[in-house]
Amino acid sequence: MERTLTCRCILLLSCMQLLKAHNDFFTSIGQMTDLLYTEKDLVTSLKDYIRAEESKLERVKWWADKLDSLSAVATQDPEGFLGHPVNAFKLMKRLNTEWADLESLVLSDTTDGFISNLTIQRQNFPSDDDQTGAAKALMRLQDTYQLDTDTISTGQLAGLSSVTPTHLTLTVDDCYDLGKVAYSEADYYHTELWMAQALKQLDQGETSSTVDAVAILDYLSYSVYQQGRLRRALDFTKQLLELDPTHQRANGNLKYFEYQLSKQTKVEGSEDEEQQKQRKESQGRHDDYLPERNKYEKLCRNEGIRMTPRRQSRLFCRYYDNGRHPRFVIGPVKQEDEWDRPHIVRYHDVVSEKEMEKVKELAKPRVSVRLFSPAHPKEI
Amino acid sequence: MERTLTCRCILLLSCMQLLKAHNDFFTSIGQMTDLLYTEKDLVTSLKDYIRAEESKLERVKWWADKLDSLSAVATQDPEGFLGHPVNAFKLMKRLNTEWADLESLVLSDTTDGFISNLTIQRQNFPSDDDQTGAAKALMRLQDTYQLDTDTISTGQLAGLSSVTPTHLTLTVDDCYDLGKVAYSEADYYHTELWMAQALKQLDQGETSSTVDAVAILDYLSYSVYQQGRLRRALDFTKQLLELDPTHQRANGNLKYFEYQLSKQTKVEGSEDEEQQKQRKESQGRHDDYLPERNKYEKLCRNEGIRMTPRRQSRLFCRYYDNGRHPRFVIGPVKQEDEWDRPHIVRYHDVVSEKEMEKVKELAKPRVSVRLFSPAHPKEI
Repeated sequence: MERTLTCRCILLLSCMQLLKAHNDFFTSIGQMTDLLYTEKDLVTSLKDYIRAEESKLERVKWWADKLDSLSAVATQDPEGFLGHPVNAFKLMKRLNTEWADLESLVLSDTTDGFISNLTIQRQNFPSDDDQTGAAKALMRLQDTYQLDTDTISTGQLAGLSSVTPTHLTLTVDDCYDLGKVAYSEADYYHTELWMAQALKQLDQGETSSTVDAVAILDYLSYSVYQQGRLRRALDFTKQLLELDPTHQRANGNLKYFEYQLSKQTKVEGSEDEEQQKQRKESQGRHDDYLPERNKYEKLCRNEGIRMTPRRQSRLFCRYYDNGRHPRFVIGPVKQEDEWDRPHIVRYHDVVSEKEMEKVKELAKPRVSVRLFSPAHPKEI
Repeated sequence: MERTLTCRCILLLSCMQLLKAHNDFFTSIGQMTDLLYTEKDLVTSLKDYIRAEESKLERVKWWADKLDSLSAVATQDPEGFLGHPVNAFKLMKRLNTEWADLESLVLSDTTDGFISNLTIQRQNFPSDDDQTGAAKALMRLQDTYQLDTDTISTGQLAGLSSVTPTHLTLTVDDCYDLGKVAYSEADYYHTELWMAQALKQLDQGETSSTVDAVAILDYLSYSVYQQGRLRRALDFTKQLLELDPTHQRANGNLKYFEYQLSKQTKVEGSEDEEQQKQRKESQGRHDDYLPERNKYEKLCRNEGIRMTPRRQSRLFCRYYDNGRHPRFVIGPVKQEDEWDRPHIVRYHDVVSEKEMEKVKELAKPRVSVRLFSPAHPKEI
């Protein structure tokens, strides 16, 4: 349990640190918590709108049903119907007064309360940058923990699923959006991964009202082409043209890829094996390799230096009073060795739950986490 | 059957002639028939709007339900929930993109088609004058055929109920509107009748969203006061104050009526019987007495000069060829004596149903019935 939590802590930090935000607003989990409550209030407001609209629609339907059956009878024998002076008077009144009342009812605005609530709250909403930041954070987690897209998309993150009460899954749209964020950063490695995931979920029967296979295949073929895999790019383009034979760019690309491929085949025939191997290795993950990052990611994956049983046996727990410090003489704190060289210790039960809540509350408005991005990797 | 139809014909004519219309538009039953079909089209258009609005509301509800259950779970343990990076990403995306999409959906206009249809059709709708005209026509029919308000309100007009496929009934609102039309014409006799009918229907359990007993009693007390029945006016005012003790005008009237009544009691003590009888007779129907109208109304009610059996026995039926007119030699027409002095005959089967339809069709755009109103009673 202890280890799972440590793991989770790191995940959280990685996640939060990577959320670029305007004025660093969404850098703390506390502020994101506030957004959850804002969202809850908006749902209440939305339900008020739904109730108002339903009752309005109920009244309109009552009128429509009444008029519908009346019209059906009246038009069977219009002259006979209008021969009755009460019917004639009621027709005059309906047309002159009641249809106007109905018009006012139909035009009455039930959206007002909800829309003004939303407009006010939206001032505190995350921006496009925040959303892009969150997308990039997800992709960095993916690299760090070497997770495949399926694992992330179904939310089955090891060490998290057991402690997080509910996790959401990514829809086709979400995967497509992640792919587009990567694409806009010219990160064709992640573009391919997420577009492929989107396509897979579509093939598995998931539906989307905004994304179709044609759009996904378009991104896919371009991103694998950019990674130098011409034959794969050609395959995706052919798949796309099967779905939409008139797709202009795909038709253009088809010819281009075929031409490039025929040229490449000639070159491959003449180059030696060493060259081919080198060329293939240069493909793959986005080109931002840094030795520090490699170490850090390995550490996160628990692939760092392992403790030997011999060294492990020299790690102990003890009560600690900080050299008979007056505050700890009566109530010393629990100290546990975590590591030997360098010496790392963990203290247990130093502050109470209540004190922690207070610290978080005081910290919330002041939190400003420094950003970690490929541009300044040493700032972590 | 023949007589019922004659009766109906007169009713119809009376009704139609009395519909004052802008440009004499609604003077013909043919044009009113067109309005019935217009109304039927509008109902279809209204139902399209209802369907569109229902499907929009369905989508909003789906979203609200989804967010509602999500919020409920997320706010149980916000930090745990946001600790999952997929949850954090989805929150960012929801707030930055999806709520805006929902807003567009909520603000999308489903009323457009129906409202523009209504706006176009309304150019041909009857006006306030037409509605007032129809109301006055009803009240004139009431006088002519000496019908009580209950008979009209339930639509049980003798000789009509059997031939009119469907007749509507007057609601509390309709009766109240009729009363108000009479009131605006300073016709306190009909004001009283129709306000009393409205009150009766309210007492019988009918409900109205726009009219209440207080408003009706206000009109009632004033209209009987105007007809000189002070004691009755006082009764209505007291009834009103029982329902609304703070009603300002009623409180003022109460004092005024009581003062007037005490004064009148003194006068009555001193005036002779003849004067009292005269004063009472001057009350009642609106003061537009005309000998011609009296005769015409009696005739309508079949209270005119009656045929004696002796004279009746001299009325015959025969075939008539208009003095061997070439058109009628082979097919003479059926002629029936209706009256002796002056000699009135009725011809049967002169034109076919099809020919009559054609005549009506040709006449429709040209019909302009001269108005019959108390101002020019001789124009009929």
